[in-house]
Amino acid sequence: MARTNNPVIRLSNVKLWRGNHMQTTNTDTKLPADKRPKLKRSIIDCDIHQSTGIDILKPYLPRAYQELVKLYGLALPSGMHFNGGLGGRMVDAFPEEGGSAGSDLDLMRKQHLDRYNIEYGILTGEGYAVHTTINYDYAAALCSAINDCTIDHWLSRDSRLRGSVFIPKQEPNLSAKEIDRVGGRSDMVQVIVSNGATLPYGNRYYDPIYAACVRHNLPFTIHVGLEGEGINSPPTGAGYVTHYIETRCARPAVMAAHLASFIFEGVFERFPTLKVVLQESGVLWLAPYLWKLDQEWKGLRVQTPWVRKKPSEYFREHVRVTTQPIEETPSREIFDHLLESIYAKETLMFCSDYPHWDYDSPSQALPKLANELWDNIYYQNAAKLYGLPPRRKEGL
Amino acid sequence: MARTNNPVIRLSNVKLWRGNHMQTTNTDTKLPADKRPKLKRSIIDCDIHQSTGIDILKPYLPRAYQELVKLYGLALPSGMHFNGGLGGRMVDAFPEEGGSAGSDLDLMRKQHLDRYNIEYGILTGEGYAVHTTINYDYAAALCSAINDCTIDHWLSRDSRLRGSVFIPKQEPNLSAKEIDRVGGRSDMVQVIVSNGATLPYGNRYYDPIYAACVRHNLPFTIHVGLEGEGINSPPTGAGYVTHYIETRCARPAVMAAHLASFIFEGVFERFPTLKVVLQESGVLWLAPYLWKLDQEWKGLRVQTPWVRKKPSEYFREHVRVTTQPIEETPSREIFDHLLESIYAKETLMFCSDYPHWDYDSPSQALPKLANELWDNIYYQNAAKLYGLPPRRKEGL
Repeated sequence: MARTNNPVIRLSNVKLWRGNHMQTTNTDTKLPADKRPKLKRSIIDCDIHQSTGIDILKPYLPRAYQELVKLYGLALPSGMHFNGGLGGRMVDAFPEEGGSAGSDLDLMRKQHLDRYNIEYGILTGEGYAVHTTINYDYAAALCSAINDCTIDHWLSRDSRLRGSVFIPKQEPNLSAKEIDRVGGRSDMVQVIVSNGATLPYGNRYYDPIYAACVRHNLPFTIHVGLEGEGINSPPTGAGYVTHYIETRCARPAVMAAHLASFIFEGVFERFPTLKVVLQESGVLWLAPYLWKLDQEWKGLRVQTPWVRKKPSEYFREHVRVTTQPIEETPSREIFDHLLESIYAKETLMFCSDYPHWDYDSPSQALPKLANELWDNIYYQNAAKLYGLPPRRKEGL
Repeated sequence: MARTNNPVIRLSNVKLWRGNHMQTTNTDTKLPADKRPKLKRSIIDCDIHQSTGIDILKPYLPRAYQELVKLYGLALPSGMHFNGGLGGRMVDAFPEEGGSAGSDLDLMRKQHLDRYNIEYGILTGEGYAVHTTINYDYAAALCSAINDCTIDHWLSRDSRLRGSVFIPKQEPNLSAKEIDRVGGRSDMVQVIVSNGATLPYGNRYYDPIYAACVRHNLPFTIHVGLEGEGINSPPTGAGYVTHYIETRCARPAVMAAHLASFIFEGVFERFPTLKVVLQESGVLWLAPYLWKLDQEWKGLRVQTPWVRKKPSEYFREHVRVTTQPIEETPSREIFDHLLESIYAKETLMFCSDYPHWDYDSPSQALPKLANELWDNIYYQNAAKLYGLPPRRKEGL
């Protein structure tokens, strides 16, 4: 393939695909993907990026936007940095007959769904750039098109798949309208937005979104990406950064700001059934962060008297976290300590990020875990959150 | 005092002053300050905020700015949030005869320097709002006035004290000029800036500052504060936050962005003798952050080939961290694990933040430590960094 002719990109990609992540597992990360062990029990994967080409998407847009897109392109600011892998994807996830990684359901089944015994896969799409434009109505039209495409081209074709409702979060009332339009479907299991934002998500400006989430019993999922792009705030509290690795390493901090915002703005008091998912922003950093939130709350709670409980209690009750990309620790002991500190038994959910370059294979993502913890992380926590039925066949 | 008539403020403050911080020590945090144990060996405190009133500062400004300040006030944007304590200070650190906390050397000696056997105290001042104005020349004039005041009114009066060079970091060439003006003095031991910034400090825009630091063998110290104020970038990658506790909990993340910037922009390759101090931004969060930096660097180093070593190696060699406010951990075991992960034996330096409301008393700041580790944190690491002479009297 022409795209692998660049030795720098190929080199980087191969190295990563051959197991950069979670070396604490010390298992078969050196094995090629098709030689890796299958899982004995089926699992739920909370983050699979299906790709729906623009040619498929376009007919779902209102005619006026179809014309504008033809004349001017998508007009969605993004792509400020290089990424990893090949365009951010694994080289071997591109279909041989062409198209982007994640665009072919058969290949997705072969490489991921079937191979790793995925009972349910939550689709998280690719349309996050809709969150970077100030053109509210256009963003809303794009989100509707994305959601309709997900339903028609993915959810209807494999009963294992579930969808995420994209919303024009720049305009909370239009967002609520879109949630009401498609959020009542049983195959749409969450509302999803990018981590990049103009205002932290606890700001009451977003309340109509949470009212709609609660109305349809849908978790609100924040997926990393688009930090500092378009209308979003610069990606760090120190301003714009130069390299992709800097913005990537700053993503947990953006998520941290959203989490603090939810807690200290009292969102969980106003919406007591709301659940929030922090996706792809790492895991273990949450331990010292929760310690700090609790510690500072003790001293400053007089300024936010509506925050009635310790921040870590809100976290435990309302927040769920996905695994990929989890931090590698210097020892197993410290890994276990930190998992405990974030209540992983209740809060952590496996995800792979297929087919992105930093994909965590289900058999490699985490070190060996005790039975119950494994089952909670790989199945039960997600099943409970998303209201998914129990396993069809019980293995092990 | 009139200022303690507000029960809300008084309540909050008393609670905190009576030992909110570092309850993992389980020692005498409930004791009033004058009943707390003295330390057997003398120590170095890396963060003491002396206060120099505007009336003392004004005569040090050029005549034109004196006139402007008389007509318009200081014109320094800051103060977007409430703070803790009383105006951010401990109630009992205000001199009885009036003036701000930290403005009276005798009281500082009585409450802190003498009581806690401080061998050297690094003064870190209060002038950080100079970093929030776009008026470069005015910022430069203010910094010169602040530095001259520090020399005349503090360093000349107590041989234990050392000063920090304030610089108009908005304009690196003017900054270098100020470093050259006063940075050669033996009693000026570091260059200091606020954590709040328009661009992360690794950006090559700042290079003239680091050239000057290296010229005078001065560490570059980043002290929390002024995030999101004036010309500085919003305080989080998610935008402006609502409450003080949110911006406070986001400060480590701003510091993290600066740290990544130093490493991935190659500052430590261009200035191999440069040392950087991260001040008042917490400690233990650095452990998972360094794991992440190392992990991502493995996969993405092809994009920043000038970064020759693991990020954690640059950290260990070039970066020092001060203790206050350190995170409280659920167990001593995890505390020790994380200290090890950040190479605390070489990198951690005690500081009190006197007389701010979240002051850590030297006898309370940390749990009991092994002898060598204690001595490194409370003395040797700072003595080495700042080139300070050994203890005058050896105790213990």
